[in-house]
Amino acid sequence: MTLRPLFPTVDTLGINTDLYELTMAAAYFEGGFSESRATFELFTRRLPRRRTFLLAAGLEQALHYITHVEFGPETIAYLRQLAPFKNVSDDFFDYLSNFRFTGDVYAMPEGTPFFENEPVLQVTAPVIEAQILETYLINTINVQTMVASKAARLCLAARGKSIVDFGSRRAHGPQTGVLAARAAYIGGAAGTSNVLAGFETGIPVYGTMAHSFVQFFDSEKEAFELFRRTFPNHSTILVDTYDTIEGVRKAISLEGPINAVRLDSGDLAALAVEVRKLLDSEGHKDVAIIASGSLDEEKILAFSLKDAPIDSYGVGTELVTSGDAPGCDLVYKLVETFKDGEAQPRFKASKDKATLPYRKQVFRRCRCGEFWEDVIGRCDEELDADEEVRPLLKQYIKDGQLITELPHITEIREYAKSQLDRLRPEYKNLHTAEVYPVSFSRLLLEALEALQSHYLPG
Amino acid sequence: MTLRPLFPTVDTLGINTDLYELTMAAAYFEGGFSESRATFELFTRRLPRRRTFLLAAGLEQALHYITHVEFGPETIAYLRQLAPFKNVSDDFFDYLSNFRFTGDVYAMPEGTPFFENEPVLQVTAPVIEAQILETYLINTINVQTMVASKAARLCLAARGKSIVDFGSRRAHGPQTGVLAARAAYIGGAAGTSNVLAGFETGIPVYGTMAHSFVQFFDSEKEAFELFRRTFPNHSTILVDTYDTIEGVRKAISLEGPINAVRLDSGDLAALAVEVRKLLDSEGHKDVAIIASGSLDEEKILAFSLKDAPIDSYGVGTELVTSGDAPGCDLVYKLVETFKDGEAQPRFKASKDKATLPYRKQVFRRCRCGEFWEDVIGRCDEELDADEEVRPLLKQYIKDGQLITELPHITEIREYAKSQLDRLRPEYKNLHTAEVYPVSFSRLLLEALEALQSHYLPG
Repeated sequence: MTLRPLFPTVDTLGINTDLYELTMAAAYFEGGFSESRATFELFTRRLPRRRTFLLAAGLEQALHYITHVEFGPETIAYLRQLAPFKNVSDDFFDYLSNFRFTGDVYAMPEGTPFFENEPVLQVTAPVIEAQILETYLINTINVQTMVASKAARLCLAARGKSIVDFGSRRAHGPQTGVLAARAAYIGGAAGTSNVLAGFETGIPVYGTMAHSFVQFFDSEKEAFELFRRTFPNHSTILVDTYDTIEGVRKAISLEGPINAVRLDSGDLAALAVEVRKLLDSEGHKDVAIIASGSLDEEKILAFSLKDAPIDSYGVGTELVTSGDAPGCDLVYKLVETFKDGEAQPRFKASKDKATLPYRKQVFRRCRCGEFWEDVIGRCDEELDADEEVRPLLKQYIKDGQLITELPHITEIREYAKSQLDRLRPEYKNLHTAEVYPVSFSRLLLEALEALQSHYLPG
Repeated sequence: MTLRPLFPTVDTLGINTDLYELTMAAAYFEGGFSESRATFELFTRRLPRRRTFLLAAGLEQALHYITHVEFGPETIAYLRQLAPFKNVSDDFFDYLSNFRFTGDVYAMPEGTPFFENEPVLQVTAPVIEAQILETYLINTINVQTMVASKAARLCLAARGKSIVDFGSRRAHGPQTGVLAARAAYIGGAAGTSNVLAGFETGIPVYGTMAHSFVQFFDSEKEAFELFRRTFPNHSTILVDTYDTIEGVRKAISLEGPINAVRLDSGDLAALAVEVRKLLDSEGHKDVAIIASGSLDEEKILAFSLKDAPIDSYGVGTELVTSGDAPGCDLVYKLVETFKDGEAQPRFKASKDKATLPYRKQVFRRCRCGEFWEDVIGRCDEELDADEEVRPLLKQYIKDGQLITELPHITEIREYAKSQLDRLRPEYKNLHTAEVYPVSFSRLLLEALEALQSHYLPG
């Protein structure tokens, strides 16, 4: 029998989407709208629970998708036999088999902090193309943005000590271990335990040892010695399998030097103090202490406040699932159509789920190097600037072609750090942060008012 | 520039793991333990928050991995240049380049409900092989088990009304949309919106329309009419873009029949009553009502208790992220090694993180067709049976070869349903369920006591 791994592939990118994207595409096609252009924007109406900012991530994979999405012949054969498509013309399937994205894409660079209602990605294209992208784009930006944002919180809590992604086993799927590792690095993690992420993206990989390795041998010492001998300059020894302090004693009595010890259970702060003392008194000031075990930003902040002598934190489940807020609630909304070459606003006036019309730009006002406020305006607007104003959305794709190179992942990580440094402390407090000010430009509000007074679709 | 999609592939399966699996492998190899066999078991020590059972899922992808895992030449070249591996012998990398899994695997069939401490998968193999599998196996079983279990809860809440997976956009990664769709179907969902999941696994795909489709047109009626005409027998009309009741009126005034209306905002229960009345009074008793919008089992149960006339629920984020419990805390622990052909118990006596030694079997006692209790015993044990006793772990892989065919996914779904039907109602209550009884066999406990009294490793 054939066992299916359910790996994504380029051939199946087109159908890695919700069915309704394709039924709507067929309806647009049959209605003669395949040339009609539209603009969609990706944003969140509300920041997730306990988040005061989000860190944009996932753009590289989103751009790969946009520039590679196609419908392989087998996927078209599959679609044709689905009941809803039985009455759809052959022309539509010919259209799909030649499908390539031909539109424009603007986005915030990865590593940019963003807030409520700010478009982080914007697609202008023939409506069918822009519509089909919806599901995959939300998915791809959502997962990495969620993890990068969580990593940034963990790094804030760690106050200069390093965070390493240990979460591959608890990430939601084999691909997601890699995506999460990448996003965590962008958000400030020092690296990951995921080897494939290192292979694919070049980010640093780290590892220690598991309890099973210690338990495999009849004595802890035998396990430690073999490990140290195999990795003479790269041994992190897991010391808590039986008794942590005894474990440390054994680790430092080995015939050669070790690099670090890992604590994975018990009162980590108290143990770290005791272990540090023992290491120092025995002349092992250079041996680092790594802590792990169901860590989150609360626990890490508590360790930081106690000045626990922990050099590095391995964080798993809570990081890669963003356990307290496992999603960013990103949406992808139609904001503009075009009629006879002229932009037509599209918006929704409802209270809870309002969307604002027109293609937008997000302007970040800065003073004395710090972020002061954001203004969401129209895309072609120019704000009065007696201070520094930066438009955050940049064009990455023009007529279907990538026109802007992406930075190396190390630069993205440095950029994210530099941006978070410019966000004032009151907006980054892990518990009681103030809301960073985001307003709408006068021009956008005036346009909206004008519309509301005379434009009630029906 | 090259944009990287970060897709998993067979060539990179070997390194889609934590670095420490590979450093431990190198240490075992260098220590001369490459022939030593060991048994690892995958289980959870505690059920996740609000869960009273878990539904096993993900075995097909786990078995694909086990029978295909290898180290492609590029991945070996990558490993060789990593700092920790600089002193590791060429023989180890030769070993990796010929790596194939040669051991045995037992597992619970997909769709089996399981509980705390019960091994859901068991690997016996040369220790290096068994160790390397850890990360990917936990990952693969974790994500699908989590979603299947959540789907089962949603179906219990829906009391016979159908649940459809609408979550692809919020699943944690593009592959995970497909994995979650598969798992949701095993857990009882009627189908998914994810087209690729339908293509890959044959599960039913469903779709409606998005607000953007309605907003694209100058009038709601124009949108509805085009959609209905394109899909004459398969139109679900989204009616809440402007005014839900007006939307329904427009939908049923179209020139041909529609199949269903979808409500996506407002007081869904009250709206469903009003919409049902309107549909019935206008002679559209056959038009179904589909509800969606941030649903979870609490909200759905409330609708069920009110007898809201909703025929089908579309559930997104909460289903595919298992939002209230985004993981199953599965672990993979060493329980047995072999010395001179004889099994050596491996266990951990610590209070919080105890593991029980020896290869195990899970016996499910049934009475009058209902599950009565589970007993975790030794693998070769036979329980006294004056009633039906079923061993839950079956062998799937022998000497690296798949020996047991997997059922079709529809059969897996039916099996899951039949098993959940046999779990008594008091163990399935969504809020205040009793704990299903799981005990350890006398033989296992005696073995453990004997070990604790004289076996303290050090």
